[in-house]
Amino acid sequence: MTKGPATRFKVEVLDGERTSRREDVVTTEEPLELRLEWPGRPPEPLVVTMRTPGSDFELAAGFCLAEGFAVRPDAIRTVAYCTDVALTREQQFNTVTVTFDGPPDREPPQRYGVTSAACGVCGQQSLDELAEREYDPVDPVEVPVDVVRRLPDLLREGQTTFNRTGGLHAAGLFTADGRKIVVKEDVGRHNAVDKVIGWTVLNHHSRKGLVLAVSGRAGYEIVQKAVAAGIGMIVAVSAPSSLAVDLARQFNITLAGFTRGDRCVVYSAPERILRPI
Amino acid sequence: MTKGPATRFKVEVLDGERTSRREDVVTTEEPLELRLEWPGRPPEPLVVTMRTPGSDFELAAGFCLAEGFAVRPDAIRTVAYCTDVALTREQQFNTVTVTFDGPPDREPPQRYGVTSAACGVCGQQSLDELAEREYDPVDPVEVPVDVVRRLPDLLREGQTTFNRTGGLHAAGLFTADGRKIVVKEDVGRHNAVDKVIGWTVLNHHSRKGLVLAVSGRAGYEIVQKAVAAGIGMIVAVSAPSSLAVDLARQFNITLAGFTRGDRCVVYSAPERILRPI
Repeated sequence: MTKGPATRFKVEVLDGERTSRREDVVTTEEPLELRLEWPGRPPEPLVVTMRTPGSDFELAAGFCLAEGFAVRPDAIRTVAYCTDVALTREQQFNTVTVTFDGPPDREPPQRYGVTSAACGVCGQQSLDELAEREYDPVDPVEVPVDVVRRLPDLLREGQTTFNRTGGLHAAGLFTADGRKIVVKEDVGRHNAVDKVIGWTVLNHHSRKGLVLAVSGRAGYEIVQKAVAAGIGMIVAVSAPSSLAVDLARQFNITLAGFTRGDRCVVYSAPERILRPI
Repeated sequence: MTKGPATRFKVEVLDGERTSRREDVVTTEEPLELRLEWPGRPPEPLVVTMRTPGSDFELAAGFCLAEGFAVRPDAIRTVAYCTDVALTREQQFNTVTVTFDGPPDREPPQRYGVTSAACGVCGQQSLDELAEREYDPVDPVEVPVDVVRRLPDLLREGQTTFNRTGGLHAAGLFTADGRKIVVKEDVGRHNAVDKVIGWTVLNHHSRKGLVLAVSGRAGYEIVQKAVAAGIGMIVAVSAPSSLAVDLARQFNITLAGFTRGDRCVVYSAPERILRPI
């Protein structure tokens, strides 16, 4: 069975001095592998996109129009989930094959990459390749709850361009006591995260003991970048995706979302957000 | 000279019954081509990412860490703008070469694709390939201003999952008199647009006379998809990027942003938003 558009997780809600545990509903994010075939060519993987399950055939058809493969109204003969017996049932519903009536209107490139919700997860062509990488354990940083709550404001103070355009994401690295290390802005959330982590690389600055704060939502690619950088805590102003929660739990990263005012929702490793005794 | 993080455009602001013309500041979105080289291998293009200029070297270094190419602290020897004489001065500042001290920690794939702010613009490896595609003219749809202002609410009414998760983008197609044709949601803005356009493809539904509404910002990839689908008007709830405005003007697409309450800002082809005489 394919997953629905929303996924349930047990979370901790920190609201003022109260902590409560409840179920929360999170937007489902799952990889979709797109394969193209036409008479004389067997189905070949073209791209993996991170998407919310539902209307997958429409997504595939729209992508093929936008990319110029299926411009003629009847260029697409069929769109179907994969029935490759080598795939698990879940993988079958994450793999869609578009069959053209002849050669596509534009020759597809040899390979794309992964296109995620906010991209930045690139270079993999098939679902198998997504799980392959290995990483060192992340730094198990502990941060007092009052610092976690201040991070969105501290991030906002570092945003110089947003105030003028209203159209930018920000990412920042902060110490566990709320000191700003670096804040960067970009039209792409994943780019802003690359910029702050890249700043530590170019400045030979340790990433130990640091928290990553992001101005918007946290998708798979944000958590992947934290994993690769060894950063153990992510504080987002807005919602996480299901795959972000899965990945954060897998790598023991503390993931907080909806961090607004006196409240935040913790999706993973809540014990590292320190509360007054 | 590289562009700054914000770009100025002349816009029309429709506020209640008043129309005013002024300058607006828009987040700059520009392609950045990343090239990798190491001893024994000349620089080769790997990926084009849509980014806001500024901290480009940090972006390149962070990308290389996240993708596993430069995991060792000193794996990167230099990061520099390109001095390729075949490139224009602007292209030089949109091309960054990362030089490693030896073979990268992970072998880069043959090619990535374009990774945009919200991706969906894929398959091109270099800046040259971005400009190459040709498109039919878009449909010059005209829409009364009161319909334009109602679109965000109509879009929200069609969003069933957002209300539960708070973490989804929506895109919708509407007629010029405000009738809903189709609304789809996704964790990725570009996917939501692919889904509604793909719906017209699979249902053999004409796209003539339709407006595309999006729940968030409008970046390059959203306008590119409208161009490919021949759709002549985009109404966004939030901010556009500079490249989105450029592309909308080039293809004579009406682009409205910050469509909230009685107000919207029109960045391109404002004459097709009809006002009471």
